[in-house]
Amino acid sequence: MNKVIIETSARHLHLSKEHLEVLFGAGYELTVKKELSQPGQYASTDKVEVVGEKGSLKMSILGPTRKETQVELSLTDARSIGVKAPVRESGDIAGTGSCKLVGPKGEVVLTEGVIAAKRHIHITPEDAAAFGVSDKQIVSVQVNCGNGRDMTFGDVVVRVSASYATRMHIDTDEANAASIAGEVEGVVIL
Amino acid sequence: MNKVIIETSARHLHLSKEHLEVLFGAGYELTVKKELSQPGQYASTDKVEVVGEKGSLKMSILGPTRKETQVELSLTDARSIGVKAPVRESGDIAGTGSCKLVGPKGEVVLTEGVIAAKRHIHITPEDAAAFGVSDKQIVSVQVNCGNGRDMTFGDVVVRVSASYATRMHIDTDEANAASIAGEVEGVVIL
Repeated sequence: MNKVIIETSARHLHLSKEHLEVLFGAGYELTVKKELSQPGQYASTDKVEVVGEKGSLKMSILGPTRKETQVELSLTDARSIGVKAPVRESGDIAGTGSCKLVGPKGEVVLTEGVIAAKRHIHITPEDAAAFGVSDKQIVSVQVNCGNGRDMTFGDVVVRVSASYATRMHIDTDEANAASIAGEVEGVVIL
Repeated sequence: MNKVIIETSARHLHLSKEHLEVLFGAGYELTVKKELSQPGQYASTDKVEVVGEKGSLKMSILGPTRKETQVELSLTDARSIGVKAPVRESGDIAGTGSCKLVGPKGEVVLTEGVIAAKRHIHITPEDAAAFGVSDKQIVSVQVNCGNGRDMTFGDVVVRVSASYATRMHIDTDEANAASIAGEVEGVVIL
């Protein structure tokens, strides 16, 4: 059986360098709070208020900065603050939702970049070969936590890179729907 | 294929007659807002504030009154207001979560009764025979909405009664995890 560790991503955002400086001031650098499982990625102590038509949520910024700003939230979150959040792969933000970002030093009107992340597996080339999967392949992942909500996630996209650690990422709605608390393993089904 | 209509239940509560009167005053009757798919069940216009350790949420009361008060919310809701909500079938509330209920005329400290509903299918005896399922059987339900989050829900409990309409009920986390918006059909898998 091809087993993968599943991690749950709470709502968060990635900022472009330009937006980071508008929100926090010129030359601002994010403060690392915790290294994440994907090499080089980290949660920062810095937060931004993400404002929709019906409300707002404070969200942590993940670093380092990226080419484009991207807000990732659950569909529950999106509904609660009144933003549109299509299910998309990270980086595929054309035509996605809009919002306002409010930081300590300034604001950004984001015309697109709000998404609900498509569930995905980051995988190393070595593990991909062992699992028999390739980049962009769609697989299913079975999760049986024994908490009364066994689940098989379909539409899981595989992303292969030597810069990855092998992990599946889901959002909080998906974790709750499968009654996943903490880190669990799923079985990849081709 | 055995197809079932899937309905999403937002957070709500059922009240005992005693608690209804504490919260709203002696002799109070719920006001029907909308008949639900299950015969005799209705959403009322009346709301109660459900208070946990970290926050509170206003929830609609479903009628008619029941033998025991029961709060049904998603695990996202439970986390946001700080209540414990084990995954349970309706009515199976021994040892479940506690909260405070605040109404216009009084308050109730609920020592148990807070649950995340176990996903389930209400089914008529005729449909159960046609589907080949029996009361309390655990089945799976496959949902492919084409929204990028195809899903197979395991651990779906079947409940057979002549007083039911045939419908599957899930909560908002489960609907969001499968990107279900509005009413969709699922395929029951034995």
